[in-house]
Amino acid sequence: MQELPGTPDHEAYPVTHRIDSVEVDADVLRVTWDDSRTSLHHSLLLRENSADPETTHPLTREMRISPLDIPPDIRPERAEVDPAGALRVVWSHGTRESRYHPGWLRAHAWFRDGDDRYRATAPTLWSARELAAPPTVDGPAAMGDDSAFLEFLEAVQSHGIARLENLPPRDGLLEEIVTRIGPVRETNFGRTHELAVKDDPDSNAFTSSMLLQHIDLPTRENPPGLQFLLCRANTTSGGEGTYVDGFRIAEDMRRDDPAAFETLSTVVWEFKNRDRNSDYRAHGPFFRLDRAGQVDEVRANPWLRAPLKAPVETQERVYRAVRDFVGLAQSERYQLRFAYRAGDLVAFDNRRVLHGRREYDAAGGERHIEGAYADRDDLLSRIRTIRRNRALATDG
Amino acid sequence: MQELPGTPDHEAYPVTHRIDSVEVDADVLRVTWDDSRTSLHHSLLLRENSADPETTHPLTREMRISPLDIPPDIRPERAEVDPAGALRVVWSHGTRESRYHPGWLRAHAWFRDGDDRYRATAPTLWSARELAAPPTVDGPAAMGDDSAFLEFLEAVQSHGIARLENLPPRDGLLEEIVTRIGPVRETNFGRTHELAVKDDPDSNAFTSSMLLQHIDLPTRENPPGLQFLLCRANTTSGGEGTYVDGFRIAEDMRRDDPAAFETLSTVVWEFKNRDRNSDYRAHGPFFRLDRAGQVDEVRANPWLRAPLKAPVETQERVYRAVRDFVGLAQSERYQLRFAYRAGDLVAFDNRRVLHGRREYDAAGGERHIEGAYADRDDLLSRIRTIRRNRALATDG
Repeated sequence: MQELPGTPDHEAYPVTHRIDSVEVDADVLRVTWDDSRTSLHHSLLLRENSADPETTHPLTREMRISPLDIPPDIRPERAEVDPAGALRVVWSHGTRESRYHPGWLRAHAWFRDGDDRYRATAPTLWSARELAAPPTVDGPAAMGDDSAFLEFLEAVQSHGIARLENLPPRDGLLEEIVTRIGPVRETNFGRTHELAVKDDPDSNAFTSSMLLQHIDLPTRENPPGLQFLLCRANTTSGGEGTYVDGFRIAEDMRRDDPAAFETLSTVVWEFKNRDRNSDYRAHGPFFRLDRAGQVDEVRANPWLRAPLKAPVETQERVYRAVRDFVGLAQSERYQLRFAYRAGDLVAFDNRRVLHGRREYDAAGGERHIEGAYADRDDLLSRIRTIRRNRALATDG
Repeated sequence: MQELPGTPDHEAYPVTHRIDSVEVDADVLRVTWDDSRTSLHHSLLLRENSADPETTHPLTREMRISPLDIPPDIRPERAEVDPAGALRVVWSHGTRESRYHPGWLRAHAWFRDGDDRYRATAPTLWSARELAAPPTVDGPAAMGDDSAFLEFLEAVQSHGIARLENLPPRDGLLEEIVTRIGPVRETNFGRTHELAVKDDPDSNAFTSSMLLQHIDLPTRENPPGLQFLLCRANTTSGGEGTYVDGFRIAEDMRRDDPAAFETLSTVVWEFKNRDRNSDYRAHGPFFRLDRAGQVDEVRANPWLRAPLKAPVETQERVYRAVRDFVGLAQSERYQLRFAYRAGDLVAFDNRRVLHGRREYDAAGGERHIEGAYADRDDLLSRIRTIRRNRALATDG
């Protein structure tokens, strides 16, 4: 009995539907599935994604054929469903046959009746009303078990914030947790940094002052997508962390004050951070919209804004919109507030969730918080990998 | 004699023009300069960029006032040029006076007759005709001297590629050079990686095959803006590096085949790279345009493309455009080709300059190349810092 062919990547593709029939229409294959849906597959796409070892490297699973090696007028000479249930194609040029796994084919099918191109998982928006505390997972459980760790990561993805608690007091723990997700994103503040009061501060973060809601490093083309704050000790009074869901505020502004939303999603601000040894600048709107018009990045930091460059007659409108945004971000209606306890690690999407803190009394105790960054890419990669390894385990 | 006031940042602002006169027009200040130009300054902008220590932190030079603390209807009560040549403003609310350094004011002036918002330095485009070798600087000179190092960095900025030569054989040298610019950008391939043949390769890079022109890590939201390749040893035959200026190819396509340019700058591809422990995916068009319509990022990698998601009737057009692009990137007309010599370090803008290599004979000698990444942010910060320190030295 013939087996199903491999696929051109490392993913698990459960066969959820069987191919009923296939029809060649010039350079397009029309595949009809057992749920009566019909998908369309262009020859050029199929040809370059053939899983045979000359097209796809068996180990790297990367494409090893050049687009220049594929005849532009290639088309299926013949196509059929083979006994194993795979799509078998004999090509017009050469003697090559390609076989396609039905699970892979279905996953990459183009259906006339749907278009789910690159849609990100919809975020779960929140304000103070919906969230009294960050989604919290037991730290030791998450460190020992991929399921608990996945729960923590999925909360960061959906809510933009999650917390581990009861973590052991151990040097190097922050890096240990971050690198379980992906590489640390180092900055001019170091690989990790300590949020303590500096005599000669190079950022307002290194004082004991209240901090307005902000994202870190808006001064980079791509500010870090993940931020981690690990509390090693905290016996000071005050200094609670304050967090708001920037996506939620943006959506509320879009509904309640469309003109301000329009201003914040189109007017470009420069953000700057300079010290004796660095000079970082980047620019962007407060709200960045993706192709579908959804907010996919908030770049807001009140005190790192450079002087506005915009026609002077528009400046009052721009300042008003910023003021409105800052007002919402500081309001009780949106702010999640909680104390940092020794053994807490808070992880959040730094391009979505703004953070701040209340003033604290630096003389009144010890406060030891370590910070580090990574990127959204790493969060998503780790979520996919844990899910895939589970699916493969179930599969096998 | 009164001195000029400080400025709200760390920059040097030479006084190139004097203020002739100032006029208050409701909430806008109209400043006339000694070259007869008139600039317009909104009260809200001036107020929050006041250099006084309650508004700007004297050490961090970050804004310490909240937008919520500035009365929305604030305006100048009185404004004048003071004896030192600074602009002095008495505000309508409170008793505060602000003084503005004329160099700073001129640098942040909004002139009706010009708009130079966030315009990046124009790149110097090249093909094989203009560039026979990468701009090259002596390695030991660059390591010992900021001027030579700046020359190297400025070439990376303008041409997207530059080379240091005659570097000493020393372990850790790659990181030493990268961290003189900024933090290393670590990836799932490590902090640095070695381009050698792996038995169990997780990327085509770790084979001895010819590599088509590509950028690295198109699988990240923001692929690394800087890539470094340090050749420690090379006695193999073949394996020359091949580089093309992606911006130049894009501009030539815009002129010669506007439909293909349009396709490559609008149709979104997903790029993927998976191995047993990671699953990175990101998407974007081959050519990303900035607000002014200039190409500011090329995301092109033939073999990491995921299957196209686009209406099937558009796929032939999309594949043709990709094929055209790959054809140009592989052509002699565009390719800069050179051998890697021991002691060479090539640095390039990975989001502009595509790289590849010719096949080499892994059995025929030793080939030892180390790679690392950083970001454009770091390049620009270091260029600005070296320039600023020179200006301050000249100033003082």
